[in-house]
Parts: sequence; C-alpha cells; structure tokens
Amino acid sequence: MKTRSLRGLLSRIRRGTLPIDAALERLRELPYEDLGFAKIDNHRELRRGFPEVIFGEGKTVPQIVAIVDRIVGRGQTALITRVGEEVHHRVRERHPGARYHATARAVTVGFRPRRGGGRPGILVLAAGTSDLPVAEEAALTAEVMGNRVERAYDVGIAGLHRLLAQRKKLRKARVIVAVAGMEGALPSVVAGLVPVPVIGVPTSIGYGTGLKGVAALMGMLNSCSTGLLVVNIDNGFGAGYSASVINKMIDK
Amino acid sequence: MKTRSLRGLLSRIRRGTLPIDAALERLRELPYEDLGFAKIDNHRELRRGFPEVIFGEGKTVPQIVAIVDRIVGRGQTALITRVGEEVHHRVRERHPGARYHATARAVTVGFRPRRGGGRPGILVLAAGTSDLPVAEEAALTAEVMGNRVERAYDVGIAGLHRLLAQRKKLRKARVIVAVAGMEGALPSVVAGLVPVPVIGVPTSIGYGTGLKGVAALMGMLNSCSTGLLVVNIDNGFGAGYSASVINKMIDK
Amino acid sequence: MKTRSLRGLLSRIRRGTLPIDAALERLRELPYEDLGFAKIDNHRELRRGFPEVIFGEGKTVPQIVAIVDRIVGRGQTALITRVGEEVHHRVRERHPGARYHATARAVTVGFRPRRGGGRPGILVLAAGTSDLPVAEEAALTAEVMGNRVERAYDVGIAGLHRLLAQRKKLRKARVIVAVAGMEGALPSVVAGLVPVPVIGVPTSIGYGTGLKGVAALMGMLNSCSTGLLVVNIDNGFGAGYSASVINKMIDK
Amino acid sequence: MKTRSLRGLLSRIRRGTLPIDAALERLRELPYEDLGFAKIDNHRELRRGFPEVIFGEGKTVPQIVAIVDRIVGRGQTALITRVGEEVHHRVRERHPGARYHATARAVTVGFRPRRGGGRPGILVLAAGTSDLPVAEEAALTAEVMGNRVERAYDVGIAGLHRLLAQRKKLRKARVIVAVAGMEGALPSVVAGLVPVPVIGVPTSIGYGTGLKGVAALMGMLNSCSTGLLVVNIDNGFGAGYSASVINKMIDK
Amino acid sequence: MKTRSLRGLLSRIRRGTLPIDAALERLRELPYEDLGFAKIDNHRELRRGFPEVIFGEGKTVPQIVAIVDRIVGRGQTALITRVGEEVHHRVRERHPGARYHATARAVTVGFRPRRGGGRPGILVLAAGTSDLPVAEEAALTAEVMGNRVERAYDVGIAGLHRLLAQRKKLRKARVIVAVAGMEGALPSVVAGLVPVPVIGVPTSIGYGTGLKGVAALMGMLNSCSTGLLVVNIDNGFGAGYSASVINKMIDK
Amino acid sequence: MKTRSLRGLLSRIRRGTLPIDAALERLRELPYEDLGFAKIDNHRELRRGFPEVIFGEGKTVPQIVAIVDRIVGRGQTALITRVGEEVHHRVRERHPGARYHATARAVTVGFRPRRGGGRPGILVLAAGTSDLPVAEEAALTAEVMGNRVERAYDVGIAGLHRLLAQRKKLRKARVIVAVAGMEGALPSVVAGLVPVPVIGVPTSIGYGTGLKGVAALMGMLNSCSTGLLVVNIDNGFGAGYSASVINKMIDK
Amino acid sequence: MKTRSLRGLLSRIRRGTLPIDAALERLRELPYEDLGFAKIDNHRELRRGFPEVIFGEGKTVPQIVAIVDRIVGRGQTALITRVGEEVHHRVRERHPGARYHATARAVTVGFRPRRGGGRPGILVLAAGTSDLPVAEEAALTAEVMGNRVERAYDVGIAGLHRLLAQRKKLRKARVIVAVAGMEGALPSVVAGLVPVPVIGVPTSIGYGTGLKGVAALMGMLNSCSTGLLVVNIDNGFGAGYSASVINKMIDK
Amino acid sequence: MKTRSLRGLLSRIRRGTLPIDAALERLRELPYEDLGFAKIDNHRELRRGFPEVIFGEGKTVPQIVAIVDRIVGRGQTALITRVGEEVHHRVRERHPGARYHATARAVTVGFRPRRGGGRPGILVLAAGTSDLPVAEEAALTAEVMGNRVERAYDVGIAGLHRLLAQRKKLRKARVIVAVAGMEGALPSVVAGLVPVPVIGVPTSIGYGTGLKGVAALMGMLNSCSTGLLVVNIDNGFGAGYSASVINKMIDK
Repeated sequence: MKTRSLRGLLSRIRRGTLPIDAALERLRELPYEDLGFAKIDNHRELRRGFPEVIFGEGKTVPQIVAIVDRIVGRGQTALITRVGEEVHHRVRERHPGARYHATARAVTVGFRPRRGGGRPGILVLAAGTSDLPVAEEAALTAEVMGNRVERAYDVGIAGLHRLLAQRKKLRKARVIVAVAGMEGALPSVVAGLVPVPVIGVPTSIGYGTGLKGVAALMGMLNSCSTGLLVVNIDNGFGAGYSASVINKMIDK
Repeated sequence: MKTRSLRGLLSRIRRGTLPIDAALERLRELPYEDLGFAKIDNHRELRRGFPEVIFGEGKTVPQIVAIVDRIVGRGQTALITRVGEEVHHRVRERHPGARYHATARAVTVGFRPRRGGGRPGILVLAAGTSDLPVAEEAALTAEVMGNRVERAYDVGIAGLHRLLAQRKKLRKARVIVAVAGMEGALPSVVAGLVPVPVIGVPTSIGYGTGLKGVAALMGMLNSCSTGLLVVNIDNGFGAGYSASVINKMIDK
Repeated sequence: MKTRSLRGLLSRIRRGTLPIDAALERLRELPYEDLGFAKIDNHRELRRGFPEVIFGEGKTVPQIVAIVDRIVGRGQTALITRVGEEVHHRVRERHPGARYHATARAVTVGFRPRRGGGRPGILVLAAGTSDLPVAEEAALTAEVMGNRVERAYDVGIAGLHRLLAQRKKLRKARVIVAVAGMEGALPSVVAGLVPVPVIGVPTSIGYGTGLKGVAALMGMLNSCSTGLLVVNIDNGFGAGYSASVINKMIDK
Repeated sequence: MKTRSLRGLLSRIRRGTLPIDAALERLRELPYEDLGFAKIDNHRELRRGFPEVIFGEGKTVPQIVAIVDRIVGRGQTALITRVGEEVHHRVRERHPGARYHATARAVTVGFRPRRGGGRPGILVLAAGTSDLPVAEEAALTAEVMGNRVERAYDVGIAGLHRLLAQRKKLRKARVIVAVAGMEGALPSVVAGLVPVPVIGVPTSIGYGTGLKGVAALMGMLNSCSTGLLVVNIDNGFGAGYSASVINKMIDK
Repeated sequence: MKTRSLRGLLSRIRRGTLPIDAALERLRELPYEDLGFAKIDNHRELRRGFPEVIFGEGKTVPQIVAIVDRIVGRGQTALITRVGEEVHHRVRERHPGARYHATARAVTVGFRPRRGGGRPGILVLAAGTSDLPVAEEAALTAEVMGNRVERAYDVGIAGLHRLLAQRKKLRKARVIVAVAGMEGALPSVVAGLVPVPVIGVPTSIGYGTGLKGVAALMGMLNSCSTGLLVVNIDNGFGAGYSASVINKMIDK
Repeated sequence: MKTRSLRGLLSRIRRGTLPIDAALERLRELPYEDLGFAKIDNHRELRRGFPEVIFGEGKTVPQIVAIVDRIVGRGQTALITRVGEEVHHRVRERHPGARYHATARAVTVGFRPRRGGGRPGILVLAAGTSDLPVAEEAALTAEVMGNRVERAYDVGIAGLHRLLAQRKKLRKARVIVAVAGMEGALPSVVAGLVPVPVIGVPTSIGYGTGLKGVAALMGMLNSCSTGLLVVNIDNGFGAGYSASVINKMIDK
Repeated sequence: MKTRSLRGLLSRIRRGTLPIDAALERLRELPYEDLGFAKIDNHRELRRGFPEVIFGEGKTVPQIVAIVDRIVGRGQTALITRVGEEVHHRVRERHPGARYHATARAVTVGFRPRRGGGRPGILVLAAGTSDLPVAEEAALTAEVMGNRVERAYDVGIAGLHRLLAQRKKLRKARVIVAVAGMEGALPSVVAGLVPVPVIGVPTSIGYGTGLKGVAALMGMLNSCSTGLLVVNIDNGFGAGYSASVINKMIDK
Repeated sequence: MKTRSLRGLLSRIRRGTLPIDAALERLRELPYEDLGFAKIDNHRELRRGFPEVIFGEGKTVPQIVAIVDRIVGRGQTALITRVGEEVHHRVRERHPGARYHATARAVTVGFRPRRGGGRPGILVLAAGTSDLPVAEEAALTAEVMGNRVERAYDVGIAGLHRLLAQRKKLRKARVIVAVAGMEGALPSVVAGLVPVPVIGVPTSIGYGTGLKGVAALMGMLNSCSTGLLVVNIDNGFGAGYSASVINKMIDK
C-alpha cells in the first residue's frame, strides 16, 4: 500500500497532473516509510509469526489491555512480560485465549504451543532454582517465536557433574541461552564446552556485593571463554529473542 | 587416537588380560578426554580452518614467539592480538609469512586472505575514527576465520544520514558487529533497523564519565532495541569470533 | 522599600543626625539586599509571570499547604511537583482553582492555560511510554512559565522512522527537551539532527545495570553530538525551567 | 545540487524517459539527503561561519593534517582541540595562518579574532587556576563561533567576595559558562544569582575521591539551583558550542 | 575501686601472702582496665554530663527499653536516635520523663534543657527544609551534651543572601555544623567565610545521581575551602558529638 | 551402586555379551559419576554428619517444604537459612523436630545439639548487637556441622578493652569467625592478635556510604594484618561452613 | 584602608559634596569587602602568622615561583605542598631561605621552626611507613601554623601493642591527626581510646579494591567510634590545617 | 626477659624496696607486653621458622636494605615481595645468599628450599599464564613458610578437561590456593569439586569492565560453591600465608 501511494504520485507526474515542484514538496513531506527506507526495516517479513511484545513492568493494567486489544485486532499473537496474575485476569476477560505462564511471569494471547513442533535447536540452561523466572522468560519468548525449546535447569557449576550429565542436550543445541546469578560462571563453562553461540543472561540473584546481578554480569563480560555474548541483567526476553533470530537464520 | 587407547583397554578386558578391578581403576585415572567427554568439545571439527589465537597483551615477546612456533609447527594459522610492530618483527624473523595489521594491532602467521573469497554475511560498523582499532580487530578475526567482511566506518549517530546511506550493506548482512565508544548508541540504532543479530562492542573511547567505555557498555546493555548482544569493552576479537561462529552455522 | 531604608540612612548622615561611625556600623549590619547586591538577583523582573515552585517529594502535606497559602496570598501562581492525588485534594479544599496533572504528578494553583497562546518554540520529546511522567513534568513546567509546548512522544530510536516522521515539529522548535530512559540515546540522535539547543533528561526507566537512570545519564553526557546539555535523572522540572529561560531570552 | 538531481529524476518521469518502476527503484537507492530529509539537518545555514571542529585527542598528526587540508580546501575555519604545540608546528607548515592557543591547548586555522567585535553576551567563569585550560577551550570555541567573550577567572566559592566582585559582568551576561573542579559548587552559586542559562562544566581537577571530576559532575547535576545545565567532565568545547548556539538564537 | 583491687593485690605481695608466681599469673588474668590502661580511656571524666547514646535504627523496642533501664538505673541521661514515636511511648511507660523530639526523631530520658543556659559557641546550619531531621539530630545531641545551640536553617546556596543575612551568628560561632544534601556546597561556602572549624554533614536528600547523599559527601570531601571536616551521610549525631567535644575543649 | 553398574558393563565386555563398539558408546553416555570422577567429589565421606543446607531467601514455602521432605526422607539433618518464623511453622507441621533459631533466622530439622559436646576450636566474634543475626548464622552452621562453638559478642574496636578482655577465648581458638559491620575493623585487629586463621564476615550494618556492607568488605580485604580470609557480606553460613571444614581437618 | 574609603564616601555625603542618589549608586558598585561584609572573613586576624599555602600539584614551576614572589613580597611565610625537589631548587634561587621537606614533599619559605617552641597539643599518628608523606604533610602544616607537633609513626592496628605503647602521647594530645591507608582502621581505634577530637586521613596506600584510598575513606566514615572527623584521601594539609585551627581556639 | 622485668618489680615490692604507690605507677607505665597481654600475640612460637616479610611495593631500595639487615641480623629468613631484579642486586651485595624469584617478583634471604622436604598439603592452581606472578607469590610464600607446594597452572575453566586432568593433585590437597583473573570462576569450580578449604585469589588480569580484578573478586565473593574464602586482588602473599597457617594447624 505504501509503495502504491508513491507509485500513484509518480503516475501523476507522468500524466502531468502534478507539477514537478509540487512533487518535490510532497516527496519531502511523505511519511518516511513510503520512500522506501522502511525496506531496511524488513523485520516484518522475517518476523512473520513473531509476536508483538509488551514490556509490562511499569505499565498500568488499562494501558496493557489497550495495547493487547490493538495487537489482537490485527490478528497477531501478543506476549506480555513482567506481569502478575492480576494482569492475566483482566486480559482474559476480553480475550479468553489469554494464558498465564506463572514462572516466566508472562501472559500470552493467541499463542498455541505446537506439541513436539517448532524449530529445534535452542537450549536454555539455568544455574539455580532462583534463576528459573528469567530462564522461563527466555524459553517462553523463544517458543512464542516458533521454536521448540530444550531446557536443562539446576546445572550450576558448584556441582559440575550436573552440567556434564547434560552432554546430549549440549551436543544437539544450535544456540544456547545460559542463565545464572551469583558469580555467573555457568555461561563461561558452557562456552568452553560447545562450538555454538552462547548467550549469557546474568540474574539479580544473590546478595552482598553481587546484589542486582552486577557480579554475574561482570563475570560474563570478562569470561575467558570465546563465543560468549551477553545481555542485560534479568533480560530473559532479550536472550530468547536473539536466540530465536539466530536460530531462524540458521534454519533458512 | 584417544578413542583408540580406550578401545585398547576394553579389548584387553575382553581378552581377559586385564582384570576388571584393575580396569575400573584405570578408567578412573585415564585422562578426561579419553573417556569421551571431549566429544562435547567437538570444537575442533567445527573450527576446521579456525586459527589459534594468542591474546598478546601482558605476554612477553619470547612467550609469544614460543607459542607461535608451536602453532605453526602443527600447521595451523596463528592470530596474535593486541601487539605492536616490534612483536611482528620478532615473529617474522622465524616465520617470514608473518604479517602485521597495523590498525588492528595484530599479527597473523599463515593467513592468506582470499581475494573476493570467504563466507559472505558479516558487516562491521564503526561509529568514529577512534573506534577503528577495535573494529579492525573484529574484522580481521572474522577474515582469519574464513569470512569475507564488509566494512562501513564513521557512521556514528551524530549524523544519521551517514548510517542511512549504508542501506545496501545493512540489507545484505547476516550478522552485524557494531563498534562504538562515547555513548555507544550506534548498535541500538542498527538493531532497530535490521532483522539480523547485532553484536555491540563498546570501546574505551571518550573522556570524563565515559572513561574506559563503561558508558558505552551500559548504553548497549540497556538498549531499547531487541536483538542486540554485547561483548566486553574493546573486545573486538570476541565480537569477530562470535560473528564467525554464527555465520558458519547459518551457512551450514 | 529596601532602597528606601538605605536612602533614609544616607539622609540622616547628610542631616548630621547619624554620626559617621554609627553609620559605618549600621551599614555592616544592614540586610544584604538593602545594599544593592540583590540587584544581581534580578530574577524577579525577568521571571515576571513565572510561578513559585514547590518540590513536593519529601515534604508533608501540611508543609505544602502552608507554602501554597503564602504563595497564593502574594497573588502568584504555584506549581507543586512530585505529589499524588491526595495532595491535590487537600490543596483544593482551600484553593478551589487547584488542578491536578496526573501524568506529570503535579498540582497547579492559579494556572490558566491560554488556548493556543503562550510563547511558541519549546518541543518536548519522549522516547517511550514510561518516560511520560518526566516529559509531562517538563512540558507542564514550561506551560506554567508561559510557553505553548509542542509534544512528540514514543519516538525512541529503536524505530527511527517514528522520530523522522516528526520532521515538521523538529524544524519549528527553538529549544528541545528530549526525555529518555534505557540507553538514553534519543537526545544524541536529535542533537545530530537539529541546530538548536537540546536539553537531555535521563529517566530512571529500565532495569539491570541501567537501574535508576545512570546508564541514560552517562549516555547523554558522553554523546558524540554537539549542542547537547544535560540535567539530572528524572529532572523534568529543571529541563522545562531551563528551556523556558532560554526561550524567553530568544523572544526578547 | 542535491535537489537538482531529484528534480532531474522527476523530469525524466514526466518526459516518459524513465519508467515508473525504475523510478521507484531509483528513489529507494538515492542518497538520503537527496530526498529532502537533510532539510532537518539545516545546520549548515544556521552555522554559517561556524568552524569545523576536530577533536584532536587520540588522532595521529597525519590524520589531523589531512582533515585540516580538507576543511581549509572548502574555505572553512578549523578548530582543533586537545592538541599540543607539536600539532601546531605540523599544521603551520602547510597553513601559515595556523595559530596555537596554549592554555586552551587548541589550534585554529583561518580564525581572525575581531577586535572588540563579535556577538556579545557570553561570560566564561573559572573557579581556580587549574580550571583554566577547560575554561579557555570553552571561551575559544565561542570566539571562533563569532562571539565576543567575557572572562572572570579565579572566582571559586572558597572566597565568595571574588565572585560577588564580578557583579557587573554577571548582570550583562546572556548565557554563562561556569567551569569548576573539586566540589564544583561555582555553577550552583552562580545559577542562584542570575536569571540567565548557566552551563556547568566539571573539570578533572582535584584528587582523592574527586579524582577525574566525578565529584564536581555530581555536584552540578544535583544542584539545588534551577536553571543549571551540565556537560561532561572537561568538555569545554561542548559548553562553548552550546553557549554559542543559545547566544546566536537570542540574537536573531 | 579498680585501682583498689590492684593495690590489694600488691599489698598481698608485700605481706608475703601471695607468692610472686601466683601474682604474675593473676596480673595476666586481671581485667584490662584494672591494669591502668583504662587511663587512656579517661573519657568518663571529660564526658561528665555526657549522655549515653543508643543508635535506635535496627534495634527492637524491647532491646532499646532494656538498655534505657540500665542507663537510667545508673543515674545517667539517655539519648536514643533514629526512632519513631512508638519507641517514645514504650519508653515513657517506664520512664515518665522521656521526651520525644519529633524532627530529630530522637527520645531523651533525664534531659532537662537549661533555659538560656549551657555552653555557647555551636551553630547548626541547614541548607534546606528536608535537611532538618539531620540538623536537629546534631543540635539535640549538642544540647544533651551541655551546649546552648544556635540554629540557622534554610540558608542553602541557591540564594546566597539568606546565608549572608546570618552574619551575626556566623561571627559568634566557635564551631559550626553545616548540614546539606543535593550538591552539598553549603559547608564549602561557610568554611570560606569563617575562621573556625566547620563540620560538614551530607544528607541523603535529593534524587537521581545524588541518591543517598554520595554527591553531597563527595562535594564536601573535595571542597576547595580549608578548615572543613566531614562525617558520614546523615550522621547528625556524630557531627553534634564532635562539635561538643571541640567546644568543651575550647571552654576549658 | 554406581561403581557396580560400571563393573557390570565391564563384565559384559569380558563375557563377550557387549561388543566393544557398543561399550565405547555406552561409556560415553554413562552418567558422569559412574565413571569415577565423582571420586573427586568425595565430599560426602568427609562431610559425614554435615547437614544439607537450603538457602531460604527467595524460595517459596512450598519449595522449601518439598526439599526438607526429601532431605529428611534420606535420614539427613536439614539447615534452612534466611527464613522467618512462618517457615518454621509450616515445616514443623510435617516434621515435629523442626526448631527455630530466632536470632540466626534459621530452621533446623533433625539437629540435636550435644550438651558440652562437639568438636572444640571455633570462636565466633561479633562487633555489635546488630551483627548478631549474621554471627548466629555462622555459629549455628558450625554447631550443626558438629562443632562446639564459643561466642564473644559486642567486642567492637570502639572499646578495645572489651576485646582484650576475651584473651582466654582468643588463646584457645583454632579458627575464628569475626563478624563486623560499619568499618569492619574487628577482623583486622583480631588477625593481628592471634596466630590462627581468621575468617572475616562483613555485615550490611550501618548507613550512608557504608550501606550494604561494602565499606566493611573493603576494609577486610585491605587489612594490613596477615592471616585474614574473607567471605561475602552477611554470609554467616559460608563463614561457619569454612570454619567447620578447617576445624575438621585440624582434628583429623 | 577599605573602611577608610567607605568612611570617605560617608564624609562626602555629610559634607554635601556627594548627592544621595550618586551615593546610592556608588554603594552598589563598591567592592564587596569595602561594605563590611569582609568582617565575616575575619580570617586574617585569627590567622596572624598563618602561612599562605600553594597547592603545587598541577601548577607549573613559573606559576609557583610567581605566587611565592608575591607572598614573600608581603612579608608572609609560604608553604608549597605536593612538589618535588626541582621546585625547591628554582624557588631557592630567588629566596635563599627556602627549605625542602623531603618526606612531606613540600617547600617552605620564611619558616623558622622554633626549637621546643610553638603551641603544644597536636599529635600526628601514622599507621605504616608508606603513610609518612601524608603524615608529614599534616605535621609540617601544623608546625608552619605555629604548633609544636608530636609524632608517633608505624602504629598500625596489625600490632596493637605498638599503639598502646604510645599511651603517654595519647594522653597529652588535645587534637589528634591519624593517618592510615589499607583498611584505615587506626583512627577508629584511636577515637575509641581518647576523649579529644580525632581527624582521620585516609591515604592512597594499598592495592586491589582499596586502590586510591577509597577503602580507607569508607572505613573512617563508617567508624563505629564517635568523635572521628574525616578529610579527603591524602589530604594531609587539610588535616594539619583543621587541627591547627582547633588547637588555636583551645589555646585562646 | 619481659616476664623477668615484671618479676623483678614484684620482688622489689615483696622486699619492701618499692612502695606500693610507686609500683602502681610503674605498672601503668610498663610496656604493654611486659604485662602479659603479649601472650595473646603468641605468634612467635607458632610461627617458628616463619620468615619476616617486607612488602616491597612503594618502599625505596635503601629502606628495604635497612630492614633486611635488621632481619638477617636476628638470624631470620627474609621474604621481600613485589620487587624487581634491581632490589635483588642491591640486597645481594650485602647478603650473598639472597635469591631472586623472577616470576613471583620476590627476593628471599636465608631461604634454603628443602628438596622434597617441607610440609605437604598445599596446592596452588592458576587459571592462565598471566596469573602466574600472583600464583608464584603464593607458592613461594608457602615454601618459605616450610611447605612443599604442588602447582597446577593453566587450568582455567574455558577448557574444563585441563582442570579435571588434575584429579590426583586435587585429591591429595589439604588446602588449595586458586588464582584467577578475568571472570575468576576457577575457585568456584574447584570449591565445588573438593572437600577442603579453597582460598580464591582474584588477579588484576583482563581489561574492560574487569579491569583491576574487581570482576574476578566479585565473582569469588558471590560464588555459589561453599567452602570458598577470598583474599584481596593480587594478594598472593596473603593467600600463601593463610594456607600455611591452616596447613600447619592441620599438621599439629
């Protein structure tokens, strides 16, 4: 449609119904994307089937509901992160298909997980029990984006045998999300074991000097292993999103 | 060979020349990799053609030369990062094929860039002139790892038109390394424009509160764009390495 | 009146009714402003029509009410920032003209926005929805100070086309307040696009290492764009105030 | 010229010598500014007479010389900041009009200060002797940008009478740049005395916990005075630039 | 009494009723203070009339009540800092003379302020209204320690005339406690005006980067004025205590 | 049992019922510990009698109860740290032997303190009353691990005589845990007095710049005394655990 | 003289030779100190005999020499801190009485230490050998300001007996400067032993996390001892200055 | 001898040659250790054979030589840490037995390593080549203190098999010093593998956000493994010292 409006404008020039100076002026005022630059933003095509995401933290419930309405109205899937059960209740009143993912603290609308389906290749690891909310946010994001996600939780480095027992899953993965708080060493150890991209997610688990995940973040950034990429503290969504982008490109 | 020694041990059990208790004891003492766990470390196969890398900073010249000798002795390519011209001189005395990459401040031994060859798909962006050493370290690393690297430098966000003029390169990239100091906003803007993985590299360019790249690092970690992954400050090598791993997997 | 008391003193010297030594002593004890130094503080004249501002955070409701009484008693407009609805209720009991500005979290007393009136030239930009309270605090402050404020919200750099679509407003502005959390890159991009002063306001939006706005603040201070001035985190009032001072001087 | 090429394209459509589909394709590939967006970047007109600036720190002498050649070749004035005497020598070899400003540590090429001329209104204050390089960088920047700059140095708050003795200059200023290290309180005190915009520049003067100017920066950001805007530590250039932009707009 | 027990021991040696080896052993086991070292700790004498102080924050009400009982049982005055009204109620049930000082958030037991009495010389300054709790904690501490305290509040540097109007009090002070949040510049300005010791108390007032008083603390530590001594953030008690110690020594 | 399964596998090789290639494959897939590496993890033997520990903070009550059930089911003692009274109530419903240690904020199940029994040698010191929860967490941990723990509380360095009065206990200790907040100097002083290992535990006691124990932690890490080892802020459990490990080894 | 010019002005009013309006105008323009406000700055009288101080760090030798000339020309004593031997040589060329104090890294001009003379009461303590430069800067400052300074060095808390052996000096002191790096606990211990004001000076001695003295500074600010006042890292001059001011007031 | 002087004093009381009052006075003035308190400081006995240590960094060569002279004069072994070759040369001129340990950057005087001798049980691990100086400082310290030290270097977690190949050494150790820079995860992994005390030493290896070892230190403090104790960044000496103290106690 956008291309169409631009074509229309050019046609009117051709037909002589639009003077060149007026055309120049119109070109300058046309919305940006009409001029073709949006081609760079060809996300849409690539993302076909990708959900629209609402970062719920700090938004009011009415704000969230309004955005969900708009997304669902366009026939898209919605993923709302960082919200409690009460948001789910309010969304479900209007959209009965809304579903609450308690550990991930997220709501999905219009998301139907395919049994055994989806693109394989993403493995989500979590060091400890307290890292689960972030790990599940990453896993759910990847699932909503069309992946079949493997999980291996409670594989922190304080007991290496737990991680090494996951050899099979590690071998099959095409991209790994490794979630860890405290000293955040799990992604480093994993990146030393596998030849695929590892995305480290520091979590705000722990206390004392590690408070808020800075220790884990610094640990991951300063990893002595190569092949480790990092996202912000607790940013499970970002890790799941990037893992999905990489996995989709591998699959093409 | 490793598998062979384990097979030999099992054969001796089979033949009855090794008592089971002794075999149990031997199994416990065998080097780790003999037992098959090294399979997880199947880097080697994937990395075929990947160079061995020496992080030169803080190593003495004799130490570097000794390691290079060993690598070249195995017939492998060597990449030495963070070194000055004088290291090159010393290495070249023994290995005439050694080549100095001045901007990247790196030495390669046994690396023959293929004209127009290599795996396409990696684009390296740099915001400013001062970011070039880090950007070139990333680009060189990717080239040594078998890629044909596109570059677009001096495309910082203070003049958006410079970045937008790179539309063609942005469209063709499969993975982008975006290097920026100061406020480090380039990767955020790029990740908002393209649907492929973007690896942000903060540099220690700038002064005042941004000294040492912390401002740029924080900017990238807190990006409002999705699809942005981060490595440590000035870690051009890490970015080039991860980009190569991703690009190789896409290519398979 | 102050000048008068000083003139009186000089007259008594002239008339010989005040010995010179006593006059010297009196001069030393006179209030500072009587001596003319307050002339430096000629804010009052310039600020004619500027409101008195109460920073509400950390003040008790009775304290706020007492200050408002005093301001209104002098016939001035009052602006109370960082307060909730309940402060409004209490103030309105005594001053029926009090009005609550919910997004800005501010109360005004005696402020009558002029329809289409006021001094034009100030544009307030906000990167995301969560930046609105700070942006509205800036906009309201400027309005109470006699400006007609343009707004353009949700123009964060993750989708450049949204910002570029505001070309018309950007062209007309004489001073721009750009509010952004996360990595805080919006003011940098804007300062690269326009030739007028840009005031960046980092907000405490975001989580992880960016918590409390330090990442955004550092991003703005280390901007690679020239012409960017910064105020403290969440300091919408300060930005709106400074923008008004600049705009008034331009208008003179 | 840019507009001309776009007009040419439209003319060929009109004449029917360019098919519409080809025109659409061409429009997408035209450089950004040809499409009129550069209108936003109408810096050029406003900046008429503004110098091109080279941030010298971290650039090699040949790099600097090359850029100067290009600027002078376009007939523009060049300002090179953060450089030593030796850069001046090298630049002067090719451009005899190059002049070194020792305190500001800057070189200008093609800058001819107008005796008693220039736009009045900018006042640069410095708290202590060690703040002079930063203050002079600000003052020189403003002078090169066409201003006649007033200076008042060594007016730190440890001896208030020195500042108060500058009453006349404070009264006449339209925009003030206040440079201070240590605790950085000078801009706060000044912003409490005058009704015009004050730009605070923290300097990296001092030792102990204030090392690198962070104490001064935090002091200015947290000022209890309104009307204070801040730039990065030691960023004299940025302050002088913004002051000039504001002063030019006041003058229009 | 302590000296007495040691004298008794020596007497028994003299009388021959205690063998020398047993005496040696006893000397080693005697409580520390019996051996005269407590002479160094001759606080008691100097502090005659000084109250016992309980830092209430983080103590349970029963713990506080028990300590008060013990102090009052010894006939001493008690000062309990950082407590709410409810602690006062519980203490008053057992000690009717207990009194709550609301602004200082402190309880005193057995403290009877002497009308117009006490040692003169201490002046407590506060920059803003929000600094009052800390300033009052300092003032009350000094009063309980026997001083007659002058106060001058709301004399922050954003309006210098307010401070300069306090010339008389500044001239009479022998030691000054200057309390300030935000950028914490008040103590610097005061130390530049007076020739007596100034104790700066940073407060945790403000927001953004100054959160928790670190900006104010750094400002005071990096003061360009000489004669400024600093205590920890919000440590009104420590400032009042040290001021009292200095004032008592001046008075001797 | 694990060794047994490996022995079985070898027996089948010997008997020829398992082809060597299949055996190789099986060896690679066997759980890690079956292969004898768990021998390194011979914790279990050494720790005989050591409890299983649950870090309660951030776990839900049902999660805690489930883990306790599993531990008790194996006949082991459980120690739950960082929990309130309500966790005790819920655990006691199912395990009547559960006991709450209020100061340590911990629950034990199956722990029966031996009167006067246990391994002697551990001394726990606390500087102030507010450090007691952390000190008691350390002491309780050591007791549950089979030690008889000496305590000396309220021996902070503000009154050295209190510490020196503990000479007897200091002389008898084999390993000392020294808990301190504020400036955290107690462990330094103690390490200067005794020839045994001292474990310093910084606590998050205090306010202002010391908030959260960072000041105490830095003090301990930078101690001028030798023989001081440090654990994280508030990590009483870690200190008690390490002290127990050292004490057990001394006892062997 | 200043008073004289004001008196002259008043006399001319009295004589009728100066109209009142002109007098008003003149009063407004007179230098600040002429109006008597400088009375607050009655430093001069109190400081009689106090030297003028030049903070040498960051000043060029010619700058220093010029300031010394001016001071000596007024017949005053000069103290130049933070300078090397070479500054001494240059100053001595013009002022033969210049003397270098090597440990304190300071030069004095016109300072003649009085044998056994000066005001008694100041004690300077240093924890370790590396703290001597800062301790000597404090001691020299106090001596130049007319004090007879006691010293006790190498009394760090790692060996308490060294400090306790200084009982006599501790008892006699009226104000103590305690200099310490590393964890900076010496001032805390001392403030717990004596009833006089203690000024803690953190030094930038140590390495690792304590680098630059921040650990020592935080330790002193968070001291659990009352009566401790703090100056900035390495600020021996500030401590010696404040100690002198206090000691002079005690002596009056 | 000390006890003797006290006994002499008591004898004179007994004999009546010293009046009791004079004895009381003398007791108060006797050096601290004479009174038996030094018994707490029974280091000497335990440390028999322990060297005297000189922290060389920041000391001048003459200072070091003087201290060595004193130590050797007492017949003790000296260990000088953090010094270069030139210190060795100067010391060897006077003490021919002086020996330089290049990697550890230390000099020993009077230290004769016992071939195969010394107390077994200490294992020193280093993650990377750049950690060797710190690891060797720890190992040498332990050797000089009478231990036979095992070493296992280059066992960083980026290649787990290297660490796991050290199973035998890990099993035999009684106390382990684990040295690591970058993210500092080695000690965590080791503490999860062994049941003995592990002392983590962060090193200042790495760049970017990990600069100066803070990332490694935070990683170790926040370890999810129990049984890990930490010393300051680069503090190899402290780790070797504490390991020796623990090992000696185990051996008793």
